Parts: sequence; C-alpha cells; structure tokens
Amino acid sequence: MYIITVLLVVLATCYGAPHKSKEPVACGYDSCNLGQADKLNVHIVAHTHDDVGWLKTVDQYFYGARNNIQHAGVQYIIDSVIQSLVQNPDRRFIYVEMAFFWRWWNQQTDDMQATVKGLVNDGRLEFISGGWCMNDEAATHYNSIIDQHTLGFEFLKNRFGECARPKIGWQIDPFGHSRELASLFAQMGFDGLFFGRADYQDYEQRNKTKTMEMVWKASDNLDRKSWLFTGLLPNGYGPPGGFCFDTFCGDQPIMDDPRLHDYNVPEKVNAFINAAHDEVRGFATNHIIMTMGSDFQFENANEWFKNLDKLIRYVNAQQVNGSDVNVFYSTPSCYLYALNKAGHTWTTKTDDFFPYAHHPHGFWTGYFTSRAALKRFERYSNNIFQAARQLNAFSGVNDRDSLFPLHEALGVAQHHDAVSGTEKQQVADDYAMRLQYGIDRAFEVINASIAKLITKPEKPAPMTPQFLCPYLNISECLPIEKAERFTLTLYNPTVHVRTHFVRIPVTNDYTVKGPDGQIIMTNLLKIPQATFSIPGRKSFAEVQLEFRTVLPALGFNTYFFEPKSDQESLIKNIVNEKISTNAACILQNQKVRVEFDEAGNLKQITNLEKSIVVPITQDFFYYQSFPGNNSRSEFQASGAYIFRPVAQTPSPLSTTRKITCVQTDTYQSAQIIINDWVSQQISIHDAQSVVEVEWTVGPIDIKDSVGKEIIVRYDTDIKSDKKYYTDANGREILERVRDFRPTWNYTIAEPVSGNYYPINSRIYIKEAGRQLTVLTDRSEGGGSINDGSIEILVHRRTLYDDSLGVGEPLNETAYDTGLVVRGRHWLIIETPEKSALSHRVVAQDLYMAAIPTFSLIKSTYEEYSQNYRTTWSAVTESLPLNVHLLTFDLQEITAENIGKYLVRVEHYFENNEDTDYSKPALVDLQTLFTQGKITDMVELTLGANLELKDLNRLQWTTADGKSSKSSKSSLFKESNSLKATTIILNPMEIKTFLISVQ
Amino acid sequence: MYIITVLLVVLATCYGAPHKSKEPVACGYDSCNLGQADKLNVHIVAHTHDDVGWLKTVDQYFYGARNNIQHAGVQYIIDSVIQSLVQNPDRRFIYVEMAFFWRWWNQQTDDMQATVKGLVNDGRLEFISGGWCMNDEAATHYNSIIDQHTLGFEFLKNRFGECARPKIGWQIDPFGHSRELASLFAQMGFDGLFFGRADYQDYEQRNKTKTMEMVWKASDNLDRKSWLFTGLLPNGYGPPGGFCFDTFCGDQPIMDDPRLHDYNVPEKVNAFINAAHDEVRGFATNHIIMTMGSDFQFENANEWFKNLDKLIRYVNAQQVNGSDVNVFYSTPSCYLYALNKAGHTWTTKTDDFFPYAHHPHGFWTGYFTSRAALKRFERYSNNIFQAARQLNAFSGVNDRDSLFPLHEALGVAQHHDAVSGTEKQQVADDYAMRLQYGIDRAFEVINASIAKLITKPEKPAPMTPQFLCPYLNISECLPIEKAERFTLTLYNPTVHVRTHFVRIPVTNDYTVKGPDGQIIMTNLLKIPQATFSIPGRKSFAEVQLEFRTVLPALGFNTYFFEPKSDQESLIKNIVNEKISTNAACILQNQKVRVEFDEAGNLKQITNLEKSIVVPITQDFFYYQSFPGNNSRSEFQASGAYIFRPVAQTPSPLSTTRKITCVQTDTYQSAQIIINDWVSQQISIHDAQSVVEVEWTVGPIDIKDSVGKEIIVRYDTDIKSDKKYYTDANGREILERVRDFRPTWNYTIAEPVSGNYYPINSRIYIKEAGRQLTVLTDRSEGGGSINDGSIEILVHRRTLYDDSLGVGEPLNETAYDTGLVVRGRHWLIIETPEKSALSHRVVAQDLYMAAIPTFSLIKSTYEEYSQNYRTTWSAVTESLPLNVHLLTFDLQEITAENIGKYLVRVEHYFENNEDTDYSKPALVDLQTLFTQGKITDMVELTLGANLELKDLNRLQWTTADGKSSKSSKSSLFKESNSLKATTIILNPMEIKTFLISVQ
Repeated sequence: MYIITVLLVVLATCYGAPHKSKEPVACGYDSCNLGQADKLNVHIVAHTHDDVGWLKTVDQYFYGARNNIQHAGVQYIIDSVIQSLVQNPDRRFIYVEMAFFWRWWNQQTDDMQATVKGLVNDGRLEFISGGWCMNDEAATHYNSIIDQHTLGFEFLKNRFGECARPKIGWQIDPFGHSRELASLFAQMGFDGLFFGRADYQDYEQRNKTKTMEMVWKASDNLDRKSWLFTGLLPNGYGPPGGFCFDTFCGDQPIMDDPRLHDYNVPEKVNAFINAAHDEVRGFATNHIIMTMGSDFQFENANEWFKNLDKLIRYVNAQQVNGSDVNVFYSTPSCYLYALNKAGHTWTTKTDDFFPYAHHPHGFWTGYFTSRAALKRFERYSNNIFQAARQLNAFSGVNDRDSLFPLHEALGVAQHHDAVSGTEKQQVADDYAMRLQYGIDRAFEVINASIAKLITKPEKPAPMTPQFLCPYLNISECLPIEKAERFTLTLYNPTVHVRTHFVRIPVTNDYTVKGPDGQIIMTNLLKIPQATFSIPGRKSFAEVQLEFRTVLPALGFNTYFFEPKSDQESLIKNIVNEKISTNAACILQNQKVRVEFDEAGNLKQITNLEKSIVVPITQDFFYYQSFPGNNSRSEFQASGAYIFRPVAQTPSPLSTTRKITCVQTDTYQSAQIIINDWVSQQISIHDAQSVVEVEWTVGPIDIKDSVGKEIIVRYDTDIKSDKKYYTDANGREILERVRDFRPTWNYTIAEPVSGNYYPINSRIYIKEAGRQLTVLTDRSEGGGSINDGSIEILVHRRTLYDDSLGVGEPLNETAYDTGLVVRGRHWLIIETPEKSALSHRVVAQDLYMAAIPTFSLIKSTYEEYSQNYRTTWSAVTESLPLNVHLLTFDLQEITAENIGKYLVRVEHYFENNEDTDYSKPALVDLQTLFTQGKITDMVELTLGANLELKDLNRLQWTTADGKSSKSSKSSLFKESNSLKATTIILNPMEIKTFLISVQ
Repeated sequence: MYIITVLLVVLATCYGAPHKSKEPVACGYDSCNLGQADKLNVHIVAHTHDDVGWLKTVDQYFYGARNNIQHAGVQYIIDSVIQSLVQNPDRRFIYVEMAFFWRWWNQQTDDMQATVKGLVNDGRLEFISGGWCMNDEAATHYNSIIDQHTLGFEFLKNRFGECARPKIGWQIDPFGHSRELASLFAQMGFDGLFFGRADYQDYEQRNKTKTMEMVWKASDNLDRKSWLFTGLLPNGYGPPGGFCFDTFCGDQPIMDDPRLHDYNVPEKVNAFINAAHDEVRGFATNHIIMTMGSDFQFENANEWFKNLDKLIRYVNAQQVNGSDVNVFYSTPSCYLYALNKAGHTWTTKTDDFFPYAHHPHGFWTGYFTSRAALKRFERYSNNIFQAARQLNAFSGVNDRDSLFPLHEALGVAQHHDAVSGTEKQQVADDYAMRLQYGIDRAFEVINASIAKLITKPEKPAPMTPQFLCPYLNISECLPIEKAERFTLTLYNPTVHVRTHFVRIPVTNDYTVKGPDGQIIMTNLLKIPQATFSIPGRKSFAEVQLEFRTVLPALGFNTYFFEPKSDQESLIKNIVNEKISTNAACILQNQKVRVEFDEAGNLKQITNLEKSIVVPITQDFFYYQSFPGNNSRSEFQASGAYIFRPVAQTPSPLSTTRKITCVQTDTYQSAQIIINDWVSQQISIHDAQSVVEVEWTVGPIDIKDSVGKEIIVRYDTDIKSDKKYYTDANGREILERVRDFRPTWNYTIAEPVSGNYYPINSRIYIKEAGRQLTVLTDRSEGGGSINDGSIEILVHRRTLYDDSLGVGEPLNETAYDTGLVVRGRHWLIIETPEKSALSHRVVAQDLYMAAIPTFSLIKSTYEEYSQNYRTTWSAVTESLPLNVHLLTFDLQEITAENIGKYLVRVEHYFENNEDTDYSKPALVDLQTLFTQGKITDMVELTLGANLELKDLNRLQWTTADGKSSKSSKSSLFKESNSLKATTIILNPMEIKTFLISVQ
C-alpha cells in the first residue's frame, strides 16, 4: 500500500500541485461513511489515549523516557500513525491531546507538516476534542477548562484551518462527568460527547434499556444552547476482547497466510461478528462504535492497522455468505453523524454523572480532594495567569511568548491525572514545577506591564522590579524581611471595585501609606503559633501587618511600607491577644457574630443584618482509609482515586482544643489548636459578613499505620431534608439528594463515599429562611451525610494504593514528613434568596484574587509618587456586578497599530438566583478599551475557533418531543437600540469576541 | 526525512525510470563509508536477531502470535525497517534469516517488492549470512548446513541478484563455533565471519591482547581456500550500555528539544564517546563496530533509527570541539572492508571455539545432546530429503514444489535453537511437525519417482503406492501387519554399492524373494522384550525378519514378502535364543569377536583380521543434573543449554544386568537389560567388522526428584594420553586434549563438562596400533574424561531451567511419561591407519542410509516382475569409494528439454587419513547422467550463488607472514588431459556444479 500512496504523491507533484491542495476538502461530515441501511454498521475508531502526565511526566511520555515506569512514547505514536495513514488511504485515526501534538509538531520538517496537513484535509487524521489535554471534570475550574481548549483550538486553527476544528468531546477516561463541561462543549460548538466510564449501576441500566446514548440538557440556564448529544462507549475505550492488536497486547494477530501454521481467519471473523452482535444489544440503532486503541497505544501503528485492514476485509467478505455485519474505518464524529441520520428519538438527561463507581465499594470520590496542595497551586496559578494576561493586554507589553509557558502548564495541569491528584508523586512534582516556571515567566510580563503602567508617560523613569511572595499563605515573604522600605502593589483582575484585606508578615513595624499618601490604619498581629511549625517555613517573621484596602476595578493600588521611627514599637504595637481557654469568645462586627463555647468550640453564627441565627458546631474528623488488597470489591482500598472509609462514622481528631481570640476594631480572629497537626483560624473582617476558616492540616499522623481522610464538618440545625447543593466547575449549582440518583434505582454500598460530590467552589444546605454556604479555595470533595451537616474532605494520606494504575499510596511528603496543607473555607449565613449574591461575588474573590507584588524601594512615598502612578485602572467604571470579565487577552498588534483582543464576558448568576442580578446584563465592551476605539467585534464560539454565525450544530430529536435546534435570536439577542459595542448577557451566558481596536 | 525520500522517488518516476534502475548499483564494498584515517571510526550496525523458533514457533515469531510467551513479531520488524530505510537514505540495516524474509516477501505487493529491491540495490538493506536460519554449529551436519544456506541464497539470487549476495557469516548467537562452518563459509565465498559468543576466558584474553579479530585457518585440508577472517563482537550482539533504543529497552531516548524537560544531549554524547573509547581498547585498528539491535528488535524501527540519527548527528558535531569519534551507519561487510583496508597484520587460529562457557560453571555442552530424539529425527529427515531429491531428478518427476516443504523445514530445523534442542517443548513439537509434513510431501515425490522408475517403459502399468514405516526403529510397521504379501523397496542414495541389513517386524513369517526372484536366507528373530514396553508402540509384531542385502549405487532393489504355506512355522522358525545369564557369551563372525563376561558385561572386542585385541567394558551411567537457581555461577543449573553434573564421577544405573544372546550364521546379538528403563542390543552382522550398539534409554526416572544425564561409557586400555578426536559437523576431525585449550592458559572449573565436545558423527581414541572409533546416528556430546575412555551423553532429563531464556527444564515427555530414546553407536576397532577407511564409509551408512518403502501388492513375484522393474540404478558404475554425491538436485527442465542439475561431489577423506583413499579422486560427472549428455558444466561457489570464476575474496595478511590469497589453480585444478566432464577432487574438497544435460 505504501507505494500506491507514493505514486499518488508523485502524480500530484509532477503536475506541480502542492499536496492535495487543489482537491476539494474531504474532511468533516461529508467525508463520512454512513454504512448500509440493512446492515449492522460497525464504526472502527482507531485511537490512542495519551495521558498528559500520570505515571510519567508529560515530557517523559512524549519522548518515551523512563519506560521502566510505563512503556509509552508519544513521539513515536504520532510518527507511526502518520506513516500508517500515508500507507493506506482507507485508514483513519483521531488525535486528542494537543499538549502532545504540539510537542511533536514543533519538531517536524516542513515536508512532514505538509503531509500531516494533507491527511487532515482528507479527513484521515481527525482531531477530536482538541484541548491541550482531556481535562478532569471534577477538580477543574471552568476558566481553565475554557482556556485549555482555546489553547488547543488556537494551535489547530492556525496550523490546519477548518478541517481541524474539533466537533466532538472525547472524555473517554475521566472518572465521572460534569454537566458543566457538557454545557461548555455545547457552547464550543461540539455536536456530541463520548465517554468511557459511568457508574456501574447506571451503565447496566442504560445497556439494558438501549439508552447508552442520549441528549444531555447540560444547563438549567442556557436551554438548547447547552444540549449535547452524549454517548457512553460500549467497552470503556478499548477494543472488544480478542481484538487488541497493539504491540503491547497479547491478542492473536490475524494469521491469513494459509502456507504458514496457525491460520486463524475464520475463527477471528466469527469472533468479531459475535462481538458486534453482542455490542449492539445495548444500543439503539444499527450503528455501533468500536474503539480500537487504548492508553498510549499505536506506538507501532502498523501492527494495529495491518490487522484491522485484514479484519475489515475478511469480515465484510462474509456478507456474500449472509453476514449482516458491515465494518469500516470511521471516526467518532462520523459515528455521531450516522446516529444523527438514523432517525432515532433520544432520551434526555439533566443531572450529571457524579460520583463514578466501578463496583459497589469503588467510588472515585477521593480524587475530588487528593493532592490538596497541588489543587490549590493550580488555581492560584490561574489567578496569576489571568492577571498577567490582562496586564499584558492593557499595558501593550505584548509578550505572549512569556505568557505561553504558564498557559501551557495550566493546559497540562487540567489533565485528568493532574489537578485530579491521581498521578505519581514525581509527576505531581513536575506539574508543580511547570506551573512555577510558568509563573516565573508570566511574572516577567507582570513586571514589565506594571513597570509600563506605573510609569507616568510624561516622566519615564526606571522602576525597581516587582516580585511575588508565593508563601504569603504561611506568612512568609523573605525579601522584605528587615527591608527598610518597600511597596506592595495589589492588582485587582476583576471588573469590580473590590475590598481586600491585606496580611503581610513583617520583621519590623511599618507605617503604611496608601496610594494617596494617607497613612492607613493597620493592626500588628501575632502570627498564629501553628504557622511556625509548618515544615519548610524559613521566615523569621512572627508578626503581620493587617489592613483593609479598596482596589479599583481592573487596576492596582500601591501601598508604601515606610520605617517607623521607633522600632521598639514592634512589640508594644502588637494587638493584645485575648486567650479564651475555658472561656467563651465572640467575634462580631456590624454584620455577623461568631460565638464559641467555653471549650473553644464554634457554637453559633448569626447574620446580624438579617437576624438569622444558626447554631453550628464545627470540628475536624478523620475516616480511616480502607486498607484493602483490591483483589475483590470488598477489598477495595482507599487511594488516590477511591475514597473508602473503614467505618461510616468519622472519629474526632481531638476532644480538646486551645482557643486564642484576637479582637481589634477591624479584625477579629479565633485561633484554635485541635492537636499537634491540626489547627485553624476563624476570622471576620470589618464590615464583611463572610466568616473565614483558615485550616491547617498535616503532617497527617500515620504512626499508627492507619491512612486517614481528614474532614471538616459543619453541623447545624438546618432542616436540609437530604438535599445539598454543589457547584459544577465553579459555575452552575446542582442539587444533590442523599442516597439517591435521579435516573436509576440506586443501591447503596458506600453510605459516605457514595454521597460525595465534587465541591469545586461551594456547597450549601438550606431550608426556608436559612442557608449555610461554604466556599472553598480549591476543589474538594464532600457532601451532606446527615441533615443540617456539611462535611468537606480537606486532606488525605493513604497507605495503600487503590490499584487503579497509579501504583503508589497517596502519601505526600515534604521536608521528610507528611505534607502540611493550609486552606480556607468561607462561610456565609444568609437567606436562600440572598445567598447567591454573596457566594457568587465572594467566589470570585477566592479564585480571582488581587495579586500582591512587592518592590524594594529606596525612595519615600513623596519621591516615588512624583515619578510613578500609585493607582491605575484600565476602566473608568466598574462593570455590572453580575458580569465577569472571563478572558482578556491581547492576541496581536498588527503593523497598522490595530490590536486584536480575545474577550470573554460572562453573566455569572443563574436564573432566579437573585431578584436583581439574575436579570440580563448590558455591557458596553468599549468600556474595557479606554485607550482605543473598537473597530470590529466578531462573536465567536466559546473556544474562539469559529465565528458564531458559521456554527451549525447537528439537530437531535428528543423523546420529550423537542428538537435540539435553538433559535439563535433567542439566545444571542442583540438589541438594535443599543450601541454596537453593547451586548446583552443572560444568566450564565458567556460571550466570546475577537475585538479589533484602533 | 520522509518527504525527502518521496521526492527522490518522484523525480525518478516522473522521468519514467523504474526505481533507481538507471543509477549505478551502489551496493557492495564500493558503497562503504571507510571513515577517517585520523579518527576512531564507529560502525553502527543496525540489526535484528530473529530466532527461527525458540520460545515460540517460527510462524508465531513471524506473525507476532502468542506474545504472552515472548514479544516478537517479525512481519512487523521487516515492515517497519523498510519504512525507516525509505525515510532516510543514510540509514542501513542488515537482515539475516531467510526463513522469515521469505515468509514476509511472499505477502508483499509488487510495489513493496520493488521498493525493497531498490533498497537492496542501494546497499541500504544488506543481506548478511543469508541462510534460511543462523544455524547451530554443534549439532548440525554439513550436508544440511550447505543446503540451508543454498536455500536462502537461491531465494536471494532469484529475487535480488548480485547486490543481495551475502558476503559475511553472521553467527552472533550460536553457543560455540565450529571450524567446519568457517571452512564452509569460506567455500561459499564469504569474506569474513563475526560472532557474539566466545568462552569467557578466551574472550578476556583476546580483549586484553587486541586479538578479538583474526584469520581462522578453518581446514587441515583445504589450505587458504578455507581461511576466513573472523571477529568476536565487542558486546555480544547488543548495543553498548545505555544505547538500546528499541521499544523493549529501557534506556533513555535522546531528548534534544530544549523547550521540553529532561534535555539530555550532552550526557548522551559523552557517554557514547566514552563507550567508543572503552571498546577500542580491545581492538586492533581505529575501526570498531557497534551492533545496534538484539533479539527481535526493530519491531518499531523508527524508535531505533530516530535516536541513532540524533546520536550520529550530535556525536559527530563534537568533532569541531576536538572529539576523535566519527560515527556512521555501516554494515558488517563495510566494517570488514574497513578492517581489510586498515593495513593490519592479523593473528591466526587453527582450532575451534568449542566448548563455550560464559562463566566458570556455565559450559554450554548440554545442548550437544539435548532433545536426542529430535536430533535423530532431523538427521533422518535429511536422509529422506536427499533421497527424494535424487529420485526427483533421476525420474524427471520434477516436483520441486513438493520437495520444498521438507527443504524449508530442514532449513528451519538447522536453527541454533532447533536441532540444538534449546527450544521450548511446544516449539520442538512444531519443528517435528514441520519435518513430518515435509517428509509426507517429499514422499509424494518418492512415490511418484519410484512409480516412474519402476515402470518398464514398454509396459506402463499402474503401481500400488509406496509408504514409509517411520517407526521401524521400534520394530513397528502397522500397514504390513497381517498383510498377505508386500514389497520392500530399498533405495540407496549413495554412489556406492552397499551392503544393507534389513530387520522387518512381522506378524507372519514370509518367504522373501530378492529382485531376481531368488529366495533369500532370513532369520526370524524375537524382537527384544524391552521394545514392547516403549510407550506409544502399537504394533502386535513380536518377531522380525532379518536378512542381508546388497543394493546398487544410486538405485533400488525390491524384495518380495510372500506368504509361507505353513503359517505355524512362525513359532517354530524363530531362531533359538541362547540365554546367557551368568554365562559368558561371545558374538563372533569372520571379522570381529565381541566377548561378554558371566555378569553380562562387555569384556573385550577383537578385530580378528588384524588381531587387535581391546579389552573393553561398557556401561550406562548418570550424572545428577545440577539443581541451581542460577543466581550466581556456583548456582548454575544443568538445563537445555548447560551440562553441569553435581559430581564429576557418574553413577552406574544398575549393578546387575540380564543378557540374552542370539546367534545365527549371519547375525549375532546380545540383548542386555540394565534396568527398567535402560537396555541395549549389541549386534554384529555377517562379514561386518562394525559392532552395533542399539541403546534404549528412558523414561529417565525422576521419581527421586533428581535430573539425570545419561551417558554410555566405553572403557579400554588404550593409552590415549589425554587426546581424543571428534568430528566437526560430520566432516573434518579435530584433536581434543583433556583440560587444555590450544590458545590460552585454561583454568578448569568443570572437569567433565569442560571436556565435552560435539560428537556430530564420531569420536575416537587411539594409540599406536589400536583405535576405538564410536560412530553416532545423531549429534551427541561427549569426551574422554579418562585415558582409554570414551563417554557419550545420550539422553537428558533436567528438572531445572538453566536460566538462559528457554524458561523450561529439559523434561521431555510422551505418552504421559518421560521420553524414551533409542539410538545407535557403531564401534570400530582398527589400526589408526585403517580406521578412517572404516569410519568414513560407515558414517555415510548412518546418515545416508538406504530408504525402505513398502507397498501392499496382490500379485506374485512372477506377475510383478513382468510388469515392473525390481532393481534399478541411476548409474552404470559406482563412483570411487572416497567420493560422495553430496547434492543431486534437478533445478529445472526447460522447454527445450534441457535439464539443469545442481550437483555437489565431495572427496570425504582427509589428507593422510588413508594411504589409498586420501589421494585425489577423479570423477567423470557424466557417469551420473546415463540418460543424457552433459552440454554445459559451470562450477559454482559452495552456496551455488556465484560462478566460481567470478569469486574474488578479500585478502588478508597474517602474522605468520602469509597472505590469504590462494592460487586458484592449485585448488581448483583441472587437467587438460581429462574429459571435460571429469574433475579432480582433493581430500575434503567439495565441488559444486550447475550442469546442463540434453
């Protein structure tokens, strides 16, 4: 076959035509084989599943390094697949993970790149999903999901054009499926979604009722715009038994030379025909899909394709003998298209696919929390990234190259064995290293941008560099220790003016001046004792300066730390602590009262404005991790993926505690020591109703050889009636009902773990008049195991592997001891009707916080402020409170001095969440461009790879008698009475624009 | 790189030229890169070592089936290598085993075949060795070695022409190296030989003295014609540590993208330069070879080549920084050519490389005997094959297709894990099955040929078919049981009139008539009791008819078994047995007397003609197989490869025996029962001096959980003075000296095993006036552990694997018990001066025996002989006694009725072995063609793939001041005074001709 292809190339080349360029493009649905109406049509989908890091790092996987850990080399996979596709034009292959494809592409010659383009234009190589990775669905935030797809889409669009635009979501490996991701995929223009894993009970039920494929109504807000055809794959994502022809499979090849021993064509053909008949029993049409491939397969594509070629030939040859099986190379999109043309009416689904269990005791809910520190670092990195992108755009520094490593690292980190925490330790370390390198490089942009923005145009002056203090969460900022003076610049990446509370660890006391030169009221507080024992903390700072600031929208303020004349004031200035051991302590401001009992236990929180009283206890507990050998369901161990407690009732970590309360006019705090390795600080700030719980857990004690799963539990008298609510990827809220699944009759085997859901940003319980909302600073797992109770798994340390591949217990260490994790919960007591207004806004503060940068300066405020701006904002007015600037990215500045910007704006309230803010919002995008006039605005799909006007998604007929066809006007309504740059956003709507500015 | 190649093809194709055909051929030495004089030149030889069966069968290996046993798929290797060669014209690869290449080639399209031809003509794909397999060197017979190479060479010559002619022997894996094979290689026109294994002491010594490469003087008879440049490879046949880039290796790839993590170019380059410097220390010139590949590697050639491309590029780039290492793709022949041009003077060697030990207790001498039954079956199969080929040619049946399966199966069976006995049981079974299938198919030719030859031309009459009785060795021939009458046709495949002794198991007594109708004197003998208990024997025959025949040269006689009128004679006709328990027994004829003592022990053999008396005892002993775990040299177990006895003194299998003597005028025999599972029959025939010992061993008793190595030991008073003599592959004799190695100071660790050598056909000891020669019917291992003694390992059963890969103990079973093996030793007592005349001739009888075929007939002799020939000979006169017709093969019959024949004639005596027969022999080849006139005679190299006149082997200068250049005239001398068809053969000379006959 090889030579045939060469000859085709020859002909094209002899006539001087570039490869295939004059032929009509044959990609897309038009290139699909739709089978035969009277046959069972088997779509062979040749594919490889390439984890963007798992047991090996992404680069180890790419190069095929460290094959002693796992044999996998993606460079060779792609090399090999291209060769095999060139050899036989019948063959098709899909590729998914752009993190790898990009690595490979960069190393290719122009000629090879041209060959690949030819294959893409012929539809022989099809990109599916096309994100940087196949992202996790539980622990990922929607901001990063969108960005990682956009990164992949941009790569594909720029290199290959329309034929490479992915049309299908391909989440074959993630362990549970988020409705939000389906909604985002629909908004990216995808026509369908396939995945390989679903709860074993769900799968069984669907297979029995031929409802493996359905229309997922993926949003409570976006209606048909969010509907997505969704299919469970018949065999995970592997081939049917006996038909794995990969180098690393043991199945027999097709031995078709009758001159040699072991001729097995009849045996293989019969087995395949039987496999096809078996499979179709669970499916609704006369089309079925067979995923031919698996993890890192096709490293030697010839082995797969050579045998598949034979299989197709010999199986179809049986049609003359009456066989009804018609098999051919296809792709997921062609399979989808065949389903679409099959005239079937599909059932629908409105809930999600969490949690996922593969057997009665195998609930994959541990990973919602696994590697809690990495989960936080990933979200922090995104915070930096978004700020850096904005600053790059606003400043015109235009250094996308320096932003790329962080964008790339974040793309990698979204992988379903990255932020999920289900990778080996060495790989987790690599993810963190990549993020840190990305941050370092992105900080070059931040630094250059601030330098540019801070400079008064009329007085350009060299600026001392900014730096980050990444360990502020453990009250450490070494560069400013003993510094005589320094500045703190706080950049607010939201489009709203924001109140921000600063805590800066110091070794001196300072006079702090605001941007206007006014001295700011500060509190000098002791750093809680528990912080000092955190391994790795190098700081000598024992105190911190606390103060309140108000930051401009999309802008920064600079604060000046100037030496106090009397340095002895350090000690005398420290706010007096009120030690409340065995004495009740109350934290209270204008809005909230937090009461502790004599033993140091949280007792009650009162929303003073609304007079809502919630008796509440809070404590740290642990579940023993199940120590199984995984040989059977009953022996399933708790590990990186699985959360399986030995007992269904957790044990307290201590029965006594030590409480220390600190109270100032503006800040009040209770420091509570639970035991040697668990403590917390519960704080309220002036005029804020949110109660902050900063917990510190670790090193988890395993001296008793017992793995432990540490939860924080909030117990109230709220009559929650089995119901609780968790967000999906930081966006829409889903109702959860204890011990219940909306679509099947649920058999309970794991009362705790089976009720855990991903808490990406918040969880709440409510009753009429009262709601307790807990916001998290990272993804965690949790649920409501009893009415009135919320429990959140914050840190885990297991001594057994759960035998799902990672091959290591989840036993994180640092500084020769177990890892210490610190994090925050923000509690809100409100009415259900007003809770959204709090948690929607506050959640933004958690994931899109102000970025503090420091600079060591010599000058006084007066000298400095003459040369530099001390405050700056990109906008002259805040945007509406229900609008979020999700993306602001300078794409390029052309020679004609036209800037192009990728802008996503978002209505981040749901329908009926708030009487005011659930209304449509009007936004004049010109507001974002104070320096220039918008000359062109093109609305794009969410992934920014297609003009929205060119999007034509496939239409599906659902069993409830509706078509998925949405009238564009109702969803993308623009009013003629508005300015051309003003758009309307409906609840939960994200609009994506490419904006040209003069 | 891929596209570049495509473009080259494009250009060629656009101008209408077939691929490369108009370009000068660039294969052969002229295509070699000879490096740089001032550099250390590293020849990278990319290769795969593909065992023609070992852990899997040859077809399992070819297809990549049963990869659970061992991952290996040769079809993919060749697919993949071709792709990689096409991609980059710098790359080179060698391929060795035609058994695989033939399988692959048959499945390719014309286009792919054209591509491969282009690669061969470019020298990018080079065939090395080019036999059907890489044959074993210990257990193989020269007849089959030559045939298996000829089979491969013929394939290559017919498909590819001169560029594919192998020039190098490549015996990288065989475990010990035969001088005879080197001699045969020289005669095939090879310029050199490389191998990977040599005794660890030898290797160390050579590496220290830079004598890893030498000129091997490979024959005591053929002088320079047998000299062969020989090199030990530096690293077995694998790559240096850290540079294995195969899919199945764990070494790190070259990670050269500085944008990614783990960039390792400097580290890899330095390691490679160090490896080259390390290696050259053991070698004599500034050229070294690095074998890049190993067992079944290059299944994904791209992985190897991609990294080698990089390695070459980056290592050579260091030359600008002063590196002296120059590395490039090469081949073994190009490396050889560079050595040839290096102007070095080479040391020489005259002995061989047996036995091979890889550590002090790891002597690979067990395999000389392992699978004794398979070893015999292989040699028997060759016997059938040669007879069938001859008959095919003489009869003009011209059915090479039916001969091919046996030729192919024999080619496969020569493999160094086939006849060697070092394969898994399932593979041994497959080899046997292939041979049996080959015999069945070849028998179609025998049958058709006999039918044709037996028919009187004037009276064509249908002939009842012939059949073989393969179990005659256990006195079983089921089809003739109870048959009223049948014929026995005996075909003699030698060129000499031959006396043959027939023993036919019968259930009736018969009158036997010879070809002339005369009744033949027969003895009706009891079949020895021990035969009846051989598992699997189905025959009801308890008696056998014994008689003497004389067969024509290259012809047959038919014998007629006709019913005796009085069937009760069966019992009364049985020769009376003389039971000699506790009584001495003497077997005696005109030539030899064999005496047993009262206890049944052999006591003395006397050559009556020469009055040579040799007191001789003989017994069966066993060594305990060493039961080690192989973790260290001391714990080396005895297994399929290794013979390692626990103690150095063997134990007798029994101290008592039962002897039964039978004596007739023409036949005398002593049946001796040693124990339940060991027995023997010692016989002499009328007028024959040879004493036949037919031993039956097995099932070896392992109820004591002790593996056993069974030897037959002959102890005499011959003062052999540590010396003993064994043949190499059935041809020349090598002198062995106990506890001594000719080329190094030998340290003894295994007194028995270290003195074992392959006994392919014979072993002898001698003193002035007396010589004891033992001929074997198959390859066995043995030696002379004490003066006057010969011991031969005849059967083995081990309970431990020797950890050299086979993964099974050598524990053969059949019929649910240990395998029973029966074999023969023929003893000759002679003067040393006259021994050769006996053993040379008798050895021919053993390996090229007359083939008995049977036919059930209805007619009487008189009726039969009117219709059919009862005797026939291809020749009108015998050839000289010292000449052997090694090959007689009808190549083709053309339309013009010209037959072409491949003929090899051989002088099979050595120089000075016999006063008469060591003289040159004159042979008129026309003698072989009674039916037609020789019209053309072209002398070829031994492998029949080159006219001898076109052969120009490379010349080497040796340290003894000689050049290897041989004057052709002295070796291939023809005398003008002789007929054109008459040739002269010097001792041990084989001449190969392509003869055209009208």
